[in-house]
Amino acid sequence: MAPSAEILCIGTELLLGQIVNTNAQFLAGELAKLGIPHHFQTVVGDNPGRIRRALALAVERAGIILTTGGLGPTDDDLTHQTLAEHFEVPLVRHPAVLALIEERFRERNRSMSPTNAKQADLPEGAQILPNPMGTAPGIIWEPKAGVAILTFPGVPAEMRAMWAETAVPFLCSRGWGQEIFYSRTLRHWGISESTLAERVGAFLQSVNPTVAPYAGNGEVKLRITARAADIAAAESLIAPIEASLRAIAGLDCYGADEETLASVSAALLVRTGTTLAVAESCTGGMLAEALTALPGASRYLRGAVVAYANDLKTSLLGVDEQRMIDHGAVSEPVARAMAEGVRKRLASDWGLALTGVSGPGGGTAQKPVGLVYIALAGPAETRAVEIRLGAQRGRDWIRRVSTQSALDLLRREIINREAFGIMKER
Amino acid sequence: MAPSAEILCIGTELLLGQIVNTNAQFLAGELAKLGIPHHFQTVVGDNPGRIRRALALAVERAGIILTTGGLGPTDDDLTHQTLAEHFEVPLVRHPAVLALIEERFRERNRSMSPTNAKQADLPEGAQILPNPMGTAPGIIWEPKAGVAILTFPGVPAEMRAMWAETAVPFLCSRGWGQEIFYSRTLRHWGISESTLAERVGAFLQSVNPTVAPYAGNGEVKLRITARAADIAAAESLIAPIEASLRAIAGLDCYGADEETLASVSAALLVRTGTTLAVAESCTGGMLAEALTALPGASRYLRGAVVAYANDLKTSLLGVDEQRMIDHGAVSEPVARAMAEGVRKRLASDWGLALTGVSGPGGGTAQKPVGLVYIALAGPAETRAVEIRLGAQRGRDWIRRVSTQSALDLLRREIINREAFGIMKER
Repeated sequence: MAPSAEILCIGTELLLGQIVNTNAQFLAGELAKLGIPHHFQTVVGDNPGRIRRALALAVERAGIILTTGGLGPTDDDLTHQTLAEHFEVPLVRHPAVLALIEERFRERNRSMSPTNAKQADLPEGAQILPNPMGTAPGIIWEPKAGVAILTFPGVPAEMRAMWAETAVPFLCSRGWGQEIFYSRTLRHWGISESTLAERVGAFLQSVNPTVAPYAGNGEVKLRITARAADIAAAESLIAPIEASLRAIAGLDCYGADEETLASVSAALLVRTGTTLAVAESCTGGMLAEALTALPGASRYLRGAVVAYANDLKTSLLGVDEQRMIDHGAVSEPVARAMAEGVRKRLASDWGLALTGVSGPGGGTAQKPVGLVYIALAGPAETRAVEIRLGAQRGRDWIRRVSTQSALDLLRREIINREAFGIMKER
Repeated sequence: MAPSAEILCIGTELLLGQIVNTNAQFLAGELAKLGIPHHFQTVVGDNPGRIRRALALAVERAGIILTTGGLGPTDDDLTHQTLAEHFEVPLVRHPAVLALIEERFRERNRSMSPTNAKQADLPEGAQILPNPMGTAPGIIWEPKAGVAILTFPGVPAEMRAMWAETAVPFLCSRGWGQEIFYSRTLRHWGISESTLAERVGAFLQSVNPTVAPYAGNGEVKLRITARAADIAAAESLIAPIEASLRAIAGLDCYGADEETLASVSAALLVRTGTTLAVAESCTGGMLAEALTALPGASRYLRGAVVAYANDLKTSLLGVDEQRMIDHGAVSEPVARAMAEGVRKRLASDWGLALTGVSGPGGGTAQKPVGLVYIALAGPAETRAVEIRLGAQRGRDWIRRVSTQSALDLLRREIINREAFGIMKER
């Protein structure tokens, strides 16, 4: 079995929740790219006993140990000292490192305090892992057979520079990076995680590439991860699985990786040379905001009307007052009228409208919180859908899922019309 | 020695570096608030053997174990199953939980798949830790003396709600939270971090409470943190410091803690009984979205017009075409006309408008990316400001800071008018 890597992050500020551990995320992603197995991450405070305990455990579990933090000049910076004690070697002062530290202080016209010299004391036998951005160097140390320890400061920019410039070449020289992990994430809307997982069940057992489902904010993702010699080889492993998964999911799969329902819908509008106008009520501008977050939105978005007050649904969108009295502002007929009204008044090919109860107040037995009507007025006809999101996930969630559902309705309609070759038939 | 807590985060996506571990940061901060010692955090993938290994270690090292992740319906969600195996008890299906899961699916007109039932299977003897936002509940389980295990889903919003509603009361009932850390964060707009830090310099040396500045997304925060027996005692330590800091910052301090420029502006509109209408261009709905994110927005927001295409600035807002030709769509005169037009056409007391270049394209020497004009039409007069945000921070940042600056203009204007006692003089 190939040795695995373990990440050991040292710093009391992590245990106090004062900072989020982006170093662990960065190193984890980099290990995956190099194809280095990685099974455990540990966070420990600036405490010699507990650092040694975590270190002993890491040495027992892994062959490559990456530490972050504890390289500074103060008394609670203990990483190199604790490593030396654990492997029972002395600390050795490196004049070259000391000179470099003194130089850094001269550059900034600052006088160096004696404690800074401490940063030049490294475990006997360790190589220097140079820090191009700061005063504290790390080490690359193989204290015994099958164990390589690389230490980094906690400052993310310094850690990343040291990783790229020295750690990666070292690991590749040790035979890593021959294989990489490479992922594609397929994104789905309008299907539950469990239903999708059942449909693609056979693929979830696949070994290379692996396929794993994730859910959140109303969408479901399938992550396809391949292990291969390089990205091209990984993509050729992923391609057939991706094709099969897309075939199974059909239109429920809206895109991959960085694509969003907004970016996919925008691309469809651009490709079909059609324009959109938006009428919002419960989402209060969220749909327009999502569409204008993309550069070049003026190519496809005419504009939007947020008719929050009901009388504006009439004065700005031309919704018939009687219709609102008969059906209520949150109703399919009003959603249809809003979509048709905004399409006409803003002179666009498509009119997309939402009206609903986003809560927490305003719900009734007939019109509960989470009830939303979405309508899309197009060149030929107007489609409408009713969605019921429930109240328990809250106002923000209802508004977000409603916005995504509206974009999904537009996406499916354009794709279906393209399929039927009836775009621009107005 | 009091037992300590340990955080065990379960999820392969953490080991692949696909997400940053904000759950660990949140829980670590909450443990600190409750005064619960916390010495180790471990991250492990969706692997039964390694989850059990990490679990055994946590049980040996700590008395309170908090896990996140692995509560979903799919085969790689293993937390409760692995816990049951480790403590050699069976999983028991909870009909009440099953009914709740079925209910959630009914609410959303989704059919529940058999695998979802798995989320109702909990280790024998464990209490349910209710999940108010999702289908997967956690557990509170004391499988043996001196060991309490609390499990949470990986979805941050669900985890946080479960923590606040159930976990905190449980831990307090066990005697924790006797001495607490309690913070108030003062929020500022329109002043730089260095300027504010200089003005409040003397307070940054304070010990209990401590005062620390933070900056981000155009705002500057001062966090006041007190250590005390309870919240009341902490607040009495914080109150005089807060009063002094607010006095120094004046109108640049817009609120505290969860308050936002949107919530503060909304409260001012409600208190003065005035209504707002919004006209947006470069922000594309972001301002309206921020104002409608708050419950009860219909009390003060009439609606919004996103006039993204220039001809809509004329047809929907009545901006004089010649004025756009003379000054350009991104200009103070057009911003003023948009504010006055939306105030008139949407029949509101205030009209707030933005027009600018959010980039990345569309900038010129005279009208560079990041140039934004904001205008506020009120009962008496129309005010306008020009802001130059530069291009390098990108489109999203320009849109966000523009939106906040518009809210800040409204906030200051209402406060000044209140001070002069000339509200409602139309």
